Amino acid sequence: MTDLHPALAAMTLEEKVSLLDGADFWHTQGLDDHGVPSIMVTDGPHGLRKQPQEGDHLGVGGSIPATCFPPAAGLASSWDVDLLRRVGVALGDECRAENVSVLLGPGVNMKRTPLCGRNFEYFSEDPFLAGRLAAAMVQGVQSRGVGTSLKHFAANNQETERMTASAEVDERTLREIYLPAFEHVVRTAQPWTVMCSYNRINGVYASEDPWLLTEVLRDQWGFEGLVVSDWGAVNERPAAVAAGLDLEMPSSSGAGTRAVLEAVAAGTLTEAEVDLAASRVLALVDKARPVLEATESLDVEAHHALAREAAAASAVLLENEGDLLPLDPSSGGRVAVIGEMARTPRYQGAGSSQVVPTQLDDALTALQEQLAGRREVSFAQGYVTEAEEADPRLVDEAVQSARGASVVLLFLGLPAAAESEGYDRTHLDLPAQQVALLEAVAEVSRDVVVVLANGSAVSMPWRGRVRAVLEGWLLGQAGGSALADLLLGRVSPSGRLAETIPLRLADTPAVGAFPGEEGVVRYGEGLLIGYRWYDARQMEVAYPFGHGLTYTRFEHTDLEVTAVDAGAAQVQVSLTVTNTGPRAGVETVQVYVSDPASSVYRPEQELKGFARVPLAPGESQRVTVPLDARAFAWWSTREQRWVVEGGAFEVRVGASSRDVRATASIELPGDRTAPALDLLSPVGTWLDHPEVGPRLREHLGTGPFEAMLDDPTHGEMMRAIPVIRMSRFPGFPLDEAELEGWAAQVRG
Amino acid sequence: MTDLHPALAAMTLEEKVSLLDGADFWHTQGLDDHGVPSIMVTDGPHGLRKQPQEGDHLGVGGSIPATCFPPAAGLASSWDVDLLRRVGVALGDECRAENVSVLLGPGVNMKRTPLCGRNFEYFSEDPFLAGRLAAAMVQGVQSRGVGTSLKHFAANNQETERMTASAEVDERTLREIYLPAFEHVVRTAQPWTVMCSYNRINGVYASEDPWLLTEVLRDQWGFEGLVVSDWGAVNERPAAVAAGLDLEMPSSSGAGTRAVLEAVAAGTLTEAEVDLAASRVLALVDKARPVLEATESLDVEAHHALAREAAAASAVLLENEGDLLPLDPSSGGRVAVIGEMARTPRYQGAGSSQVVPTQLDDALTALQEQLAGRREVSFAQGYVTEAEEADPRLVDEAVQSARGASVVLLFLGLPAAAESEGYDRTHLDLPAQQVALLEAVAEVSRDVVVVLANGSAVSMPWRGRVRAVLEGWLLGQAGGSALADLLLGRVSPSGRLAETIPLRLADTPAVGAFPGEEGVVRYGEGLLIGYRWYDARQMEVAYPFGHGLTYTRFEHTDLEVTAVDAGAAQVQVSLTVTNTGPRAGVETVQVYVSDPASSVYRPEQELKGFARVPLAPGESQRVTVPLDARAFAWWSTREQRWVVEGGAFEVRVGASSRDVRATASIELPGDRTAPALDLLSPVGTWLDHPEVGPRLREHLGTGPFEAMLDDPTHGEMMRAIPVIRMSRFPGFPLDEAELEGWAAQVRG
Repeated sequence: MTDLHPALAAMTLEEKVSLLDGADFWHTQGLDDHGVPSIMVTDGPHGLRKQPQEGDHLGVGGSIPATCFPPAAGLASSWDVDLLRRVGVALGDECRAENVSVLLGPGVNMKRTPLCGRNFEYFSEDPFLAGRLAAAMVQGVQSRGVGTSLKHFAANNQETERMTASAEVDERTLREIYLPAFEHVVRTAQPWTVMCSYNRINGVYASEDPWLLTEVLRDQWGFEGLVVSDWGAVNERPAAVAAGLDLEMPSSSGAGTRAVLEAVAAGTLTEAEVDLAASRVLALVDKARPVLEATESLDVEAHHALAREAAAASAVLLENEGDLLPLDPSSGGRVAVIGEMARTPRYQGAGSSQVVPTQLDDALTALQEQLAGRREVSFAQGYVTEAEEADPRLVDEAVQSARGASVVLLFLGLPAAAESEGYDRTHLDLPAQQVALLEAVAEVSRDVVVVLANGSAVSMPWRGRVRAVLEGWLLGQAGGSALADLLLGRVSPSGRLAETIPLRLADTPAVGAFPGEEGVVRYGEGLLIGYRWYDARQMEVAYPFGHGLTYTRFEHTDLEVTAVDAGAAQVQVSLTVTNTGPRAGVETVQVYVSDPASSVYRPEQELKGFARVPLAPGESQRVTVPLDARAFAWWSTREQRWVVEGGAFEVRVGASSRDVRATASIELPGDRTAPALDLLSPVGTWLDHPEVGPRLREHLGTGPFEAMLDDPTHGEMMRAIPVIRMSRFPGFPLDEAELEGWAAQVRG
Repeated sequence: MTDLHPALAAMTLEEKVSLLDGADFWHTQGLDDHGVPSIMVTDGPHGLRKQPQEGDHLGVGGSIPATCFPPAAGLASSWDVDLLRRVGVALGDECRAENVSVLLGPGVNMKRTPLCGRNFEYFSEDPFLAGRLAAAMVQGVQSRGVGTSLKHFAANNQETERMTASAEVDERTLREIYLPAFEHVVRTAQPWTVMCSYNRINGVYASEDPWLLTEVLRDQWGFEGLVVSDWGAVNERPAAVAAGLDLEMPSSSGAGTRAVLEAVAAGTLTEAEVDLAASRVLALVDKARPVLEATESLDVEAHHALAREAAAASAVLLENEGDLLPLDPSSGGRVAVIGEMARTPRYQGAGSSQVVPTQLDDALTALQEQLAGRREVSFAQGYVTEAEEADPRLVDEAVQSARGASVVLLFLGLPAAAESEGYDRTHLDLPAQQVALLEAVAEVSRDVVVVLANGSAVSMPWRGRVRAVLEGWLLGQAGGSALADLLLGRVSPSGRLAETIPLRLADTPAVGAFPGEEGVVRYGEGLLIGYRWYDARQMEVAYPFGHGLTYTRFEHTDLEVTAVDAGAAQVQVSLTVTNTGPRAGVETVQVYVSDPASSVYRPEQELKGFARVPLAPGESQRVTVPLDARAFAWWSTREQRWVVEGGAFEVRVGASSRDVRATASIELPGDRTAPALDLLSPVGTWLDHPEVGPRLREHLGTGPFEAMLDDPTHGEMMRAIPVIRMSRFPGFPLDEAELEGWAAQVRG
């Protein structure tokens, strides 16, 4: 427990309580008499969304220009922690330039279903990857003396009824899937704030869940910062204070303050609880004070360049038949650019994260510039992005343009209204008119490259009709130039899928259990989201988690998996990666761990390490990836701890979750002793016990029980009966008290 | 509430309590002083398993001979309620002949996964089908003055940790999937007893769950009988008495009696609660008294003939390429019978339901007899049923036998140890040596018929290698002759699958959520078991639910779906079925209901009616199937009732769940009014309300809230916010009290 803030001593209860409520939409409450300034927080994990002072009442209007980096769906595909850190530093600098103290992000919720309308703001379907990337971003921002707000804590995986629905998730699934990204960021990067989510978890609002906000977050993970509500997430304010929710945002217009004062007066909330929350607000303000004085200005061009680098690292080359890409800038022949999104890019999501960019690159212009004087670039609009129906004139024009071109770059994607904070998608398809355009273009050209803009996976039933697919996700304000860089080979694609692209909606994990009903959404698939699901189901996918091509090739050799400290499950994975192709490129080595034998169900394999390896042609590098105990552990709800079960684990190293290049086995002793005998343990477990077993057999003698337990036909059924139940069957030689005595002896 | 039994008045508390415990493994406690006899109950849903008086301590030893009918997995495939009733009558007569008062069955648990070791004892993956068939069986038994015990109540869908595991199932899934078969039997057939299951349900032992045993079973469904524990299912006896568990079986050796007396003495259980349970025991004994006096003897031959008829009706012809079956008895050519199971049939499951048959037919002998003097029948053993490894000599012999035969009848199946009460399967495969034999035989013969013996679905990756597959399930003591009847065309196959045969284990619904861990098994797939799952996932299966071929063909024409009483959702489905093929046969018309638009997730389609239609060649029949409100309803956990939502429903009629022959739509008004407004209702719902909406708009005026709610970009997100949360945003014109007032006005 941190010490209480010294300024509290001089404050009245009313003053302390007033600190727990926002001053307006974006500011905390200041207390001039006590020298407590008001600080500003703003939206925007991938850029600053600072509203002008006058603002609006709901906080969704315009904002001052800021660099729009790729949203998390893009950035995550880089698998590049250093890049995330550098983007974080830039975001921190943008905050300083605007005297903003806390940036409200990043969001590390898991992509339970591709339908979640806000997936573009989240990193991955895998908690390990999301945690590593988000921690780097938080470290980057906070290295500039600016705070972050890790959100939305927790199990906020859909927009439908997001403010009321109860996510019903078993604890093991929470611990292994929905919480670890938060946990890793908290443990390694200490975000200044954590933002609680709107939803309920197993019936309890996240905003008033003491297990979540205090026991897990603070006591177990060691979080030292402040918990802020998502905007409007508070249900009962006094319960929220007691649970560990320090700051309500935005201003509750006094409602929260009144409720807290009434609760203190009524004795249902203590002043000590108020002090603790107020103390955390004051500590946050103290950390933020330097930002209020900051006078740096923004290097807009440098940040745009970084946004371009980040965008190029975020795109994933899914398909590249016959090395159609990169296009040779000097080979001649017309490049037919088709699709409105080449000219008017979709580059970020909708909702609270919308940034007003400092500038905006489009791919058409970038291609024209980069190919100027070398190859002809034509353009056909193809479709009206937000239109429901195809425009036959535009389709004809596109087909004419495609005919006779050396290559077609077909820019497709989801319209802005298709994915947003606030509501979910209902299907995975691109607009029908875009697919029809693709079919028409593919009829006249074999050499079609599809370039996609979408914040979450789309189905690609058409993928066999084209030679290359470049998945751009949402790439921020420099996405257009970055795409040109990739298409023309100025930069080699290095992105890897941070989410599986399934064949169709019916294959996805949460069918029938999303978006829930009657206020409840059951996470029935449990641990099996993303690749864990498709692996368990041995299901074909369009493109697997971790997949991504580039313009060269890599070999993985000489895998070694060794125990650094077997008892502590500290393991080192080493291998040699060689660029065996013609160009420089980046291999992202992925390490998956599989537990072939366990007392509980375990996913087929789980990502537990990765390394990004840039290599020149012909170059080799020895890569080492450490694995710690958590790489092998599962969460025991019964024992309330992470358990490493002794035995052999398989370590798989590869270039995607389904492109495993080498495997090795490692034997670990684990940290688990045999479960203690109790009265509900099966008779078989008692009989197998080294100490108790022989004694029990002696008591059973050669009577009917012994005969039945060893019977070849019925023995297995009999041995599965809990000993307490068996003891009630007529004639059993031991009663409950005697059995309990034996069990106690063994425990002791 | 039934009146208490008059005999109670003269009994001491000790005497009354003694009635609540069994006397031994198979008998209730008698009280000579009060003229209360001890009555006998015995295992065996598909035949009597009466142990000789000396018995054994665990009740699994030998028993006196009785007719072994097909277990439920077979009988259910008949889809023949009249047959089930007649088998029930025969079972009742067998009980009377042995003075057994209650037969411990049938079991109507759902087949959540084909891996459940006890699936052979259960009817179906569909609750409608299971309920209809089991009710007929109960009516049959009880028409003879003998009781039944409907089991295992409830959510006992696996054997692994069956005595301790908690089945975690949401209420809607319980109400729509796991309880309806019980409900239908209780409501329509009033079984004398219901047997509670071993497991816990959402943490509470079924044996001490007042919601299950009293609120649902008695108060809601109107059960009038006695609840008995599964053998050894009692956890805390006093809690069980209070919950409505009347009789503990087998004898607890006094432990239960002592615990109940102590609880009454301590005041934690009332004497009234004891009286109620004791009264139900006395009422059961009263009903059973005539059986104690019964002197009828058994017509063994008539029952064997019925067992043969039932077996023939239970087998399902899955595949019959080029009408290979039936075999022409007079066409000449050798019939090669291959496989030990032709000679030594597997005809029932293992565990408590094992019957000692009065006689046992094997298919080999039956075929030899029926073809005697007409076609040569050869036999090759092929494999040793319980062996792990193939015997090359037996395989060679089988291949030699197959070569040059006109047709091969290859008898395969699961060994007895593969499926049993007490443990579950771990895979779906036939023994590898049997599959290898099939491959070897298929190499030398194109004309292979596989005849299967298995209590639950097996994978059939080999099905393209053979021309016909006859799924025999487990067919009881007359299965051998029944199979000969079917193969030779003396009887036409009429069975339909009561469970889907999937392509592989990875496709099945409960992967990752079965058999659970740490004492908990989460029913994550919810409503989606059986065909509901494969339909939702649009998944290919080996053979769909409802599938079954015969030796003729049928046409469905002139479907009419009409409302008898639309307001009460009483609907009549009529169609004409015509036998357009060359032989007599039975069509089983299946009626599935689909709800294309609902406020909650609904399965793609659900079986809500069926009719078995025997037709001579060329014959037509008009078939009518009634549908009631339940055919269209879903269970609202929030409202605690069945809801029919107004709108159009699709009625699909066909020959299997994936062979729909005709569809029609019916519009029903439903029984649901618009949900009342409350403070958690979204602002959009308030704005759309005919009365409140305009008033709210007036208050919002033309201010920033109105603008935001109608904003084309953010409006949908804003309208989804609960009005109470919106009211706390700065500047909202109404506070909580005012909103609550408005909502109350509308409710009032």
